[in-house]
Amino acid sequence: MLSIGVDIGGTKIAAGVVDEAGEIIAATTRSTPATDAVLIEAAVADAVAELRSAHDVVGVGVGAAGFVAADRRTVRFSANLAWREHALAEELERLTGLPVVVENDANAAGWAEYRFGAATEARHMLMMTVGTGLGGAVVLDGNLLRGSGGFAGEVAHMTAVPDGQWCGCGLRGCLEQYTAGTALVRAAKRRAATGDPLLGRLVQAAGGDRKAIDGPLITRLAQQGDEGAVELIAEIGTWLGRGVASIAALLDPEVVVVGGGVSAAGELLLAPARAAYAEHLTARGHRALADFVPAQMGNRAGIVGAADLAR
Amino acid sequence: MLSIGVDIGGTKIAAGVVDEAGEIIAATTRSTPATDAVLIEAAVADAVAELRSAHDVVGVGVGAAGFVAADRRTVRFSANLAWREHALAEELERLTGLPVVVENDANAAGWAEYRFGAATEARHMLMMTVGTGLGGAVVLDGNLLRGSGGFAGEVAHMTAVPDGQWCGCGLRGCLEQYTAGTALVRAAKRRAATGDPLLGRLVQAAGGDRKAIDGPLITRLAQQGDEGAVELIAEIGTWLGRGVASIAALLDPEVVVVGGGVSAAGELLLAPARAAYAEHLTARGHRALADFVPAQMGNRAGIVGAADLAR
Amino acid sequence: MLSIGVDIGGTKIAAGVVDEAGEIIAATTRSTPATDAVLIEAAVADAVAELRSAHDVVGVGVGAAGFVAADRRTVRFSANLAWREHALAEELERLTGLPVVVENDANAAGWAEYRFGAATEARHMLMMTVGTGLGGAVVLDGNLLRGSGGFAGEVAHMTAVPDGQWCGCGLRGCLEQYTAGTALVRAAKRRAATGDPLLGRLVQAAGGDRKAIDGPLITRLAQQGDEGAVELIAEIGTWLGRGVASIAALLDPEVVVVGGGVSAAGELLLAPARAAYAEHLTARGHRALADFVPAQMGNRAGIVGAADLAR
Amino acid sequence: MLSIGVDIGGTKIAAGVVDEAGEIIAATTRSTPATDAVLIEAAVADAVAELRSAHDVVGVGVGAAGFVAADRRTVRFSANLAWREHALAEELERLTGLPVVVENDANAAGWAEYRFGAATEARHMLMMTVGTGLGGAVVLDGNLLRGSGGFAGEVAHMTAVPDGQWCGCGLRGCLEQYTAGTALVRAAKRRAATGDPLLGRLVQAAGGDRKAIDGPLITRLAQQGDEGAVELIAEIGTWLGRGVASIAALLDPEVVVVGGGVSAAGELLLAPARAAYAEHLTARGHRALADFVPAQMGNRAGIVGAADLAR
Repeated sequence: MLSIGVDIGGTKIAAGVVDEAGEIIAATTRSTPATDAVLIEAAVADAVAELRSAHDVVGVGVGAAGFVAADRRTVRFSANLAWREHALAEELERLTGLPVVVENDANAAGWAEYRFGAATEARHMLMMTVGTGLGGAVVLDGNLLRGSGGFAGEVAHMTAVPDGQWCGCGLRGCLEQYTAGTALVRAAKRRAATGDPLLGRLVQAAGGDRKAIDGPLITRLAQQGDEGAVELIAEIGTWLGRGVASIAALLDPEVVVVGGGVSAAGELLLAPARAAYAEHLTARGHRALADFVPAQMGNRAGIVGAADLAR
Repeated sequence: MLSIGVDIGGTKIAAGVVDEAGEIIAATTRSTPATDAVLIEAAVADAVAELRSAHDVVGVGVGAAGFVAADRRTVRFSANLAWREHALAEELERLTGLPVVVENDANAAGWAEYRFGAATEARHMLMMTVGTGLGGAVVLDGNLLRGSGGFAGEVAHMTAVPDGQWCGCGLRGCLEQYTAGTALVRAAKRRAATGDPLLGRLVQAAGGDRKAIDGPLITRLAQQGDEGAVELIAEIGTWLGRGVASIAALLDPEVVVVGGGVSAAGELLLAPARAAYAEHLTARGHRALADFVPAQMGNRAGIVGAADLAR
Repeated sequence: MLSIGVDIGGTKIAAGVVDEAGEIIAATTRSTPATDAVLIEAAVADAVAELRSAHDVVGVGVGAAGFVAADRRTVRFSANLAWREHALAEELERLTGLPVVVENDANAAGWAEYRFGAATEARHMLMMTVGTGLGGAVVLDGNLLRGSGGFAGEVAHMTAVPDGQWCGCGLRGCLEQYTAGTALVRAAKRRAATGDPLLGRLVQAAGGDRKAIDGPLITRLAQQGDEGAVELIAEIGTWLGRGVASIAALLDPEVVVVGGGVSAAGELLLAPARAAYAEHLTARGHRALADFVPAQMGNRAGIVGAADLAR
Repeated sequence: MLSIGVDIGGTKIAAGVVDEAGEIIAATTRSTPATDAVLIEAAVADAVAELRSAHDVVGVGVGAAGFVAADRRTVRFSANLAWREHALAEELERLTGLPVVVENDANAAGWAEYRFGAATEARHMLMMTVGTGLGGAVVLDGNLLRGSGGFAGEVAHMTAVPDGQWCGCGLRGCLEQYTAGTALVRAAKRRAATGDPLLGRLVQAAGGDRKAIDGPLITRLAQQGDEGAVELIAEIGTWLGRGVASIAALLDPEVVVVGGGVSAAGELLLAPARAAYAEHLTARGHRALADFVPAQMGNRAGIVGAADLAR
């Protein structure tokens, strides 16, 4: 039984036919016409049509950045795309004639890790997607947590520091301001601006222009052993671990999957995260520590998870 | 179909026969022989035998303070009682000949509110029990959240303030140190010790001895309109609301039930909690606010919830 | 005995002849050629020459934004102007033939308040200048505090919140990020972006464009009683009071003069500052509370203070 | 020219004849009759009489725990001794016939370091006394900072963590709760209670009883290289450095003298303090870092400082 997964990103729509083992057996892409809901839907429908022409599918799953209502049909709000209380599933069903389910993109990716990736052995999974921003997905006893209004799993906006760094969401001290790519780069730039000698090599590698520092550069230097870059990533990891420790007090997951662009740093991120998690976990000594493992599905996670949810 | 619920507290074992409507139709108590697991079990079995003599029951549910393994049979650790990795269900089944399930007491109480009390209309409930300490229970889509090792729902030990007040659990800044009866009384005593004029009436009501201030006294003065007492309870409520806002980012509950001894303060606690929750909730304006409602089951919650879980 | 005071700002050089009572008896201005140290000095010399032509003066005092060495002759570093370890006094003495002293601008303004303005009755004064940024000046027993390297009085960069808001100085949680005009406007914009209903009138007054919100607008609405604007200014005031309470633990001033653009809000700023100061001051009940008073010298403070220091 | 210094502690009154080089050339002690002001004064007078019988002195300096009014004659409040607004200098002058000055004990000790000990080369000194509690003394340009009411230098009660650990003074998050002997021991006990394996050797060294852990034991194990003890002291040092960085933003001292019982740990305390200070100091790169040096005067500091102030 095949289904189609669609991952609607800010710049690219990626779609694929996915089998029951989570393999993508055919794929296609479109660029995202971000400012127009009708054009986005047309592009999705076009990609679906292309894939259906060669494969028999039972439905379409769509992963999209934004808050998706608990019925998995309506996008309530998206920061990047052109939707407000938008009946996305209904529109796509009309255009494609297939049953459609919509899911938040971080949730879709988390589901893929749970079903086919890093957490297939677990019943209770927490996924932390440390990309430019911070995403989260929770699977409890085999069910993806969606909450009463579809807003569950927003780990980014749990408070890490009361009265801390202002967040784009209008609150202060959100976890995303401490453990995400944006936080990593901001810390690097701020510290470089003070002439911190530890960041000397990093500034040099950015061509002498501290404003040119970005996440991949920090990761690359860290992997080469540069002390300043290692410290910057370790700080992100430490906050990740502290955040997970608070979440674990509430959810008690058995595995924590860490994905997203910053997770390319591997153990440079995971080791300090594990240490901070263990240090800040209540009842340690009386309980098993959750495993911290890297995500396995990479870019395919959105397509595969969405497709699987459509089955 | 009747079942027996047993609530094992630090000083008293309360048991009752509960019907399918959540009503206690017969009840009995024993004092708790806290230091001896065998004696506790004997007392429970004795209470069960008394209740069974007049009623036909299908099983026994036991609520106990402590961490209960996910199989609902083993108490892993209890701060107050004499158990370490103790096979409580098995022992009680041997003594009573009835099927037994064991549950954490805050979870049992939360389940009672969900099934028969303040949250019967909801699918996703968070219960915050603001007693001497802070307890939590989570029901998601009709299922009591237990986590991979039975440690879920420990809202008390989520971090409210990094490097904040030391907690008995060995961590710093746990939410329980900011919103619970102990926190309320400590704040009152500390501020009274400085001669804070706002606490003058409270000290006077404690017979001039600030060390004699306790929670019920603060609540009573607050209900009489004493400004200092109102402010003390409001601060507990504010931290409750901040904590719930972080939890809601993760779980998105539709109702928040507030129970425990401090909740006797009613709206003096709930109103500042609601305000702080709304102020610190991400995506406010795009989502419904959860209802904050007082618990309805009172002391019966532990017995009723445990009994219902045994069915 | 007359002297000349010069206030070198980012856009304007203001100079005046000041008498021993702190009155400006003649004044002139030049625009600031910010990018060229030589041109700045020429403009200052030109203004001094104009003033001298009609008045007999004994020396020149210069107030400048930046870190001034303890010898009051060298500007070590300025964020806005073209100086790095610059021998400003020596150059100006060469150009004018008069003795010159250089002082940090916030210090010069504080000295004017101490000598002729809001703190003439005091021996120990703290001045907090709440402008776009936050400035400080300390007078202890009649002496302006300068520190071992001229860096004293940098209240802006005391830590208010560990791991709090990143500061332009490369640290986190500096007091300036919580109590200054920039902090006020950022809070307003962030909260407006979430659709906070309390900020509705403010956004409306900004022509519906939340990015157009600025400090004077917030102050104006607050003075008209708008609840959202009042709350925004009160939060700045609360942090001001908390910061002063920490400073007072160290310095024990008898008066706190509050100046700068945000202080135009008057009691809307000062009342919450006083309350937070009293709440967070150690040993309260055993000591006198410092007076919080508005600055009196306004824009003249820089000229008058610098001139007085030159005598 | 000789003078007498008296150090009134909670259990012992130590007095000595001090010469102009800061040497104690004769000494005596009495036990402290803590609950009776008259008896304390009689004991001080008796010690002074003994010392005068063999040496010609010009006056008496007294160091006492507590808040001393700015006139150096009146003790306003002492947590441990029997004084409230007590005219100590006047009483002692009556009993001894010598001129008497009274000073806070931490100030007296700081003055001794400035005049004869670790800071003789400096003009601006900050002394941090890390004992059971935290004391401070500030010398600016050769003057001991006393403040408008004698309350200056109370570094213990500057806020380190908003809403942090409750302090005995009635505030939350005071620096003393993070960097002092009490904080060190509390952290050790709390972490030991969780079974933290890093603290295993420390508990063992306390005879298996974590409640028997004290400061000297932690220091001894740290000096033997025990990882847990080293980490505990490093955390105290880190907070010391953070606190000093905030103070330095305000005072810009050239030397930081670290004394008190915890300073027996030497570089185990000082190295992390220096690192945290450098990390949290504003304008680093544009300014000299203050030296962190150990105190040199030991127990003699109180006597020597008080005596010197009496000259």
